[in-house]
Amino acid sequence: EQEYDDEGNLVICRLSAKRKVTIQNFRGANLVSIREYFHDGGVERPTTKGISLNEEQWSNLRKNIPAIEKAVKDMQDRDI
Amino acid sequence: EQEYDDEGNLVICRLSAKRKVTIQNFRGANLVSIREYFHDGGVERPTTKGISLNEEQWSNLRKNIPAIEKAVKDMQDRDI
Repeated sequence: EQEYDDEGNLVICRLSAKRKVTIQNFRGANLVSIREYFHDGGVERPTTKGISLNEEQWSNLRKNIPAIEKAVKDMQDRDI
Repeated sequence: EQEYDDEGNLVICRLSAKRKVTIQNFRGANLVSIREYFHDGGVERPTTKGISLNEEQWSNLRKNIPAIEKAVKDMQDRDI
């Protein structure tokens, strides 16, 4: 049932029509990749627009979700 | 007390020595930017290695954290 992209990476979710989160295995390291794709004929290919996080970086991102959420909310409040 | 990068974006956290999460305001839209920087003299500048998520994309990422966590854990278990 799992979806793989055309490079063989496991697709976790789509963030938008063109942006996806995938799990890449690169030389034995698992990377969480947040990346934009483009259609090349019938094939969807990754662009350079994106970033692949190693486990430590992903873990740091995860720990900081509340801080990021707060900053987004503060920005929204300021916009009102 | 808040830290801003040399482009004036609010720095939320560092994921590694060179990678940061910042909040950008681009033409009125708040973007969560996950990006690599480089040192240009005394100034830290963003590289193209990264992605800036709008609020909907960020919200989608946030909702999918458990699925991403599960996939990372499954990968780790498979590596053992």
